[in-house]
Amino acid sequence: MAKKQKKTSDSCVTMTELVLPNDTNTLNNLMGGRLMHWMDIVSAIAAQKHSNRIVVTASADNISFNNPIQLGDVVTLEAKVTRAFSSSMEVYVEVFAENIPSGKKVKSHSAFFTFVAVDQGGRPIDVPELVPETEDEQELYAGALRRRQLRLVLAKRMKPEEANELKSIFDA
Amino acid sequence: MAKKQKKTSDSCVTMTELVLPNDTNTLNNLMGGRLMHWMDIVSAIAAQKHSNRIVVTASADNISFNNPIQLGDVVTLEAKVTRAFSSSMEVYVEVFAENIPSGKKVKSHSAFFTFVAVDQGGRPIDVPELVPETEDEQELYAGALRRRQLRLVLAKRMKPEEANELKSIFDA
Amino acid sequence: MAKKQKKTSDSCVTMTELVLPNDTNTLNNLMGGRLMHWMDIVSAIAAQKHSNRIVVTASADNISFNNPIQLGDVVTLEAKVTRAFSSSMEVYVEVFAENIPSGKKVKSHSAFFTFVAVDQGGRPIDVPELVPETEDEQELYAGALRRRQLRLVLAKRMKPEEANELKSIFDA
Amino acid sequence: MAKKQKKTSDSCVTMTELVLPNDTNTLNNLMGGRLMHWMDIVSAIAAQKHSNRIVVTASADNISFNNPIQLGDVVTLEAKVTRAFSSSMEVYVEVFAENIPSGKKVKSHSAFFTFVAVDQGGRPIDVPELVPETEDEQELYAGALRRRQLRLVLAKRMKPEEANELKSIFDA
Amino acid sequence: MAKKQKKTSDSCVTMTELVLPNDTNTLNNLMGGRLMHWMDIVSAIAAQKHSNRIVVTASADNISFNNPIQLGDVVTLEAKVTRAFSSSMEVYVEVFAENIPSGKKVKSHSAFFTFVAVDQGGRPIDVPELVPETEDEQELYAGALRRRQLRLVLAKRMKPEEANELKSIFDA
Amino acid sequence: MAKKQKKTSDSCVTMTELVLPNDTNTLNNLMGGRLMHWMDIVSAIAAQKHSNRIVVTASADNISFNNPIQLGDVVTLEAKVTRAFSSSMEVYVEVFAENIPSGKKVKSHSAFFTFVAVDQGGRPIDVPELVPETEDEQELYAGALRRRQLRLVLAKRMKPEEANELKSIFDA
Repeated sequence: MAKKQKKTSDSCVTMTELVLPNDTNTLNNLMGGRLMHWMDIVSAIAAQKHSNRIVVTASADNISFNNPIQLGDVVTLEAKVTRAFSSSMEVYVEVFAENIPSGKKVKSHSAFFTFVAVDQGGRPIDVPELVPETEDEQELYAGALRRRQLRLVLAKRMKPEEANELKSIFDA
Repeated sequence: MAKKQKKTSDSCVTMTELVLPNDTNTLNNLMGGRLMHWMDIVSAIAAQKHSNRIVVTASADNISFNNPIQLGDVVTLEAKVTRAFSSSMEVYVEVFAENIPSGKKVKSHSAFFTFVAVDQGGRPIDVPELVPETEDEQELYAGALRRRQLRLVLAKRMKPEEANELKSIFDA
Repeated sequence: MAKKQKKTSDSCVTMTELVLPNDTNTLNNLMGGRLMHWMDIVSAIAAQKHSNRIVVTASADNISFNNPIQLGDVVTLEAKVTRAFSSSMEVYVEVFAENIPSGKKVKSHSAFFTFVAVDQGGRPIDVPELVPETEDEQELYAGALRRRQLRLVLAKRMKPEEANELKSIFDA
Repeated sequence: MAKKQKKTSDSCVTMTELVLPNDTNTLNNLMGGRLMHWMDIVSAIAAQKHSNRIVVTASADNISFNNPIQLGDVVTLEAKVTRAFSSSMEVYVEVFAENIPSGKKVKSHSAFFTFVAVDQGGRPIDVPELVPETEDEQELYAGALRRRQLRLVLAKRMKPEEANELKSIFDA
Repeated sequence: MAKKQKKTSDSCVTMTELVLPNDTNTLNNLMGGRLMHWMDIVSAIAAQKHSNRIVVTASADNISFNNPIQLGDVVTLEAKVTRAFSSSMEVYVEVFAENIPSGKKVKSHSAFFTFVAVDQGGRPIDVPELVPETEDEQELYAGALRRRQLRLVLAKRMKPEEANELKSIFDA
Repeated sequence: MAKKQKKTSDSCVTMTELVLPNDTNTLNNLMGGRLMHWMDIVSAIAAQKHSNRIVVTASADNISFNNPIQLGDVVTLEAKVTRAFSSSMEVYVEVFAENIPSGKKVKSHSAFFTFVAVDQGGRPIDVPELVPETEDEQELYAGALRRRQLRLVLAKRMKPEEANELKSIFDA
């Protein structure tokens, strides 16, 4: 029987947060851990929308924190599923920080999270296929396989020399 | 002039948290984002202890969430600096989850975070060297270089083919 | 000199929240006060985007709570400025509640808030005009005058018999 | 059979809150949404005391925010039931803000909320009658009917031309 | 010059809290630490009202937790200054827990806290005298001296054999 | 049958907290109530580790707050069981405050809490004996009896003249 299919746009979620005093360090910058917390929540909701299931975080990929976000900034997080594998889903989340008085809005962070859909007993359960439509969505879809190999290698569940797609990026 | 030196044990931090209802999903498991938030805080304190400076999160490495942690569990997080590079520090954080009635305590998660020490104006500032002592500390110290290359490659600030130490792990 | 003009779409904000245990009463329904808190934040951000200023809440119009929202539901709040008057702005906010497992999403609440843009000293300051574009936006824009009279009458700052536009709705 | 009767004083509730950093905007003023959240909680407790039941918020009337409340102020909220209708209750809540060093205390806000008493299954259930005693209580009791018509008109559950008591206030 | 005098009733404060899920342990009882947190806040406000100053907690006396308070209960805390000594004030706080459906309200806890009034630089500063009026207030006023000696003995700032008033209670 | 025995070291718990804006008063000092909340949590975990049971706070002894802790300080709390009595345990908790930039760490507070181990129905249940090992542990163990008498006297559950061990400290 053919698996159910869903589009990327079915799982798009936008979350907006104000940076409050308790979210910041003594330089009045948003703490990294608070941002990761928000990223996890918005990504989980995207994965829930794709699967119509309870989801649990399976992994968070490497995140770089280059641009400090300030107290009082408006933070917008946008998440969408990039690809589905049997019971797991990769989600791409982008973070935008906006300083209202100056009207300056920058894309400050991005990351990939993966989630597993589970039933009420916590057991993994199949999710619909994701069908990318736009060129951007297709590129994210294609890269998902390579990122998956990297995760498996880092979690020591795949031998580096078997990660064919991943290896290719190290060949000069 | 010789740089100041500090030991791994100077930066060890232990944090203990109780998993409360608002930290959990509808399966009564700790949400991944809350755990990342705690990991970031305990790691930042370790980096502060090493540098005696304000620190900002520079990156969080890939984190796998294999073992669900339950509502009511006691979560212990242990962090220590593994290596220092001019103004940045790599921190290793281990997470243990303990179910009190059964007395069962498992190492549930681990991750690497990096922090940059900054002055009051937010500019990077030099930190002491880290001198590893035990065998475990020396191993973490040695691996820090390879993980650093991976971070730079993932952040597109180093070409994969130049990441010599990292490349070696892909050679069968 | 002509006043600056902005479109409704310039101030659109979407906020997404998960209903957690501490947000609910003993029937596991979202408490009204928590929802009003979220409505105020998302509306304030919409008014900030229109004015590029700090804003303070001036009033919240009558809100009906007909549809209970459940623990675990995903709540989406969408806010946009409907009309600007010298230093004040009316914001329309709609609330949608989504039950993920059933995929059922309903518009559960809506309300009007008004905000005043202020300078750093807290004094009211002029904001750009709002120019409605779609038919829906024009209808919200037209109704804003009548709602404003109702607010002034309720705050005892306008005599009921002078509220001409408002009075007309009571004529059979 | 005669319905049980209760006095206004049976439902009086006083709540005191300190304005903390996370409750304030960048002007160090209490955010409107936080205040509405507190108003809803204290009003709900008043309605619970009148009905000895779980209650759910049915509506919050128009609220004006004229007087900014500052960081560090002591906020006192006083709520009491003004009138009961079969399963619903109108609650009047007054807010006082006190600046301790200056000893200045002002009545800063007031509002009407309505609640419905429900059984464990969430179904509306009858509540005792309210019998006003003082002159103030009688005035609040009398006005409750007019405010109820306004709520029904605004919620489009009553035609404006049928709201006789409400209409009268628009006659010059 | 005569010192300013204030009455007990000038410092009375009532605080009301709902016991929410995050305030409870796995037996659904209010955690002792959360209750102490509330006791400290309400007592500090009482001391602020007496002194019209910033106050800092100096000590919390022995607290017994005999009666568990349940999730969903309404907790009422009442605090008042019992006696003032140069810059310090003793505050008596009583805690009542009310189960709404059963209408049962019990006095569940009580405790004494002491606070020191300080100026903007954090230095102790004189406070008005407290003049007790009712019999209860006079009894609390009289006992304050004995409790003060016990605090000083426990803090090792007074020798037990010099605590004359305290010693007398141990004489059979 | 001989009762199970445990060592002091079996119950040691370390908790680390950062002082955030919402934890402080207007002098930027940690509020006493927040510190008591943390003390209760870390002590409860120590008692849980000793008993492998759910525990409820039975009492908190007199706490002096002499040293203000600042916004941004790292607070370390260390708790351990000092002695067990049938179903109750006394826990000693020490608090250290560390100012990172200056590297200054001081022991700022200490206190004794008692907890009762309970079964799922909330009924007291026997706990293992505590066997002290070091000299410090033996001293804490010995003093536990005197502190217990003081608690019983203060709770009016023992007559002062019967508190033999306690009385002896008042004899010059």
